[in-house]
Amino acid sequence: MSLLEALNWRYATKRMTGQKVPQEKVDIILEAARLAPTSSGIQPFSIIQITNPDLLAKIQPIAYNQPQITEASHLLVFAAWTTVTAEKVDYVYNQITRERNLPADALSAYVDRVKGIFAAMTPEQQFNYAARQTYIAFGVALTAAATEKIDATPMEGFVNDDLDNLLGLPEKGLRSTSLLALGYRDTANDWLANLKKVRRPKQELIIEL
Amino acid sequence: MSLLEALNWRYATKRMTGQKVPQEKVDIILEAARLAPTSSGIQPFSIIQITNPDLLAKIQPIAYNQPQITEASHLLVFAAWTTVTAEKVDYVYNQITRERNLPADALSAYVDRVKGIFAAMTPEQQFNYAARQTYIAFGVALTAAATEKIDATPMEGFVNDDLDNLLGLPEKGLRSTSLLALGYRDTANDWLANLKKVRRPKQELIIEL
Repeated sequence: MSLLEALNWRYATKRMTGQKVPQEKVDIILEAARLAPTSSGIQPFSIIQITNPDLLAKIQPIAYNQPQITEASHLLVFAAWTTVTAEKVDYVYNQITRERNLPADALSAYVDRVKGIFAAMTPEQQFNYAARQTYIAFGVALTAAATEKIDATPMEGFVNDDLDNLLGLPEKGLRSTSLLALGYRDTANDWLANLKKVRRPKQELIIEL
Repeated sequence: MSLLEALNWRYATKRMTGQKVPQEKVDIILEAARLAPTSSGIQPFSIIQITNPDLLAKIQPIAYNQPQITEASHLLVFAAWTTVTAEKVDYVYNQITRERNLPADALSAYVDRVKGIFAAMTPEQQFNYAARQTYIAFGVALTAAATEKIDATPMEGFVNDDLDNLLGLPEKGLRSTSLLALGYRDTANDWLANLKKVRRPKQELIIEL
């Protein structure tokens, strides 16, 4: 199946069967998200993998009682850093310096520039930057799910603060941005399963200059 | 090549050869971006495809003289809607209603709810929403480039306002968010070509609950 076939096969699954997705498939999706590029390579997010049925049942009302929360096999919560501090930037570049066997100060001029960019931002701007990078990984992850023939529902319909408090994300310096419910489509019960996929036409979406 | 192999093969190419990428390959990347899901299906963005060398030469200083701007075959500018108005939401849902052969008012309660969500946002919040959706398509597009073995440089290092004014984006209700330079890696001259890909380790990035 080509990538375009996979993207045409996928849809925002509204009902799932509850069948378990093998963890090795989920690990491929998570690894794809981990490999996603981010601006300056900072990867300013975490992904929380939830399989505990009790916890999923608590999340469901926070997500307006959407059935796929508990019918999914795995729920992935994408959560961005609330702030991008100099300490975090140093942490990331210390790892890069170490893994590439570079002299300790090889990147310091570059790192100072990156830190300066973030220092000039408000905390809200830092979060918006982090959230956008999180959505790159989100896009890569849902593409990986499609190529693995795992159904995936991208979701923004939930009360972020309530979910964050339930999961203890504020203490981790994280704020949820989106959910990806992974499972298998329940074609018989999903009203969206057989509806035509609609996208804005190419000649409208793409501008050639 | 599996998706993970493709994601490991790709890197943020810093030098390209100038060789042309066949348009049919670029069209696959654009189609992948078009198929990317977005919240409420609104696709609040455009992608501007630029191949004109004179225009690319004008963009280069706006992007801090990065060489891949002119060494690329195609430059894709991802640009989000600056605002999400009720008119735009109606436009999108009229298309969905038409293409799915639904009665004219079948979605009107849902559409009113969607319009209410955006009406409660400031223009800046509307743009931030649109920008995040744009990054989903950005993530899907760069994944498609990798599976097609086309090098792609994701870039945020440019002066957005200057690029927007050069391309006439404000008149189109668009604001640039990121660039994707497409071409072929110049391995001999690219300092990054042979450096180890570094990502935050899985046990740090993924939290299991």
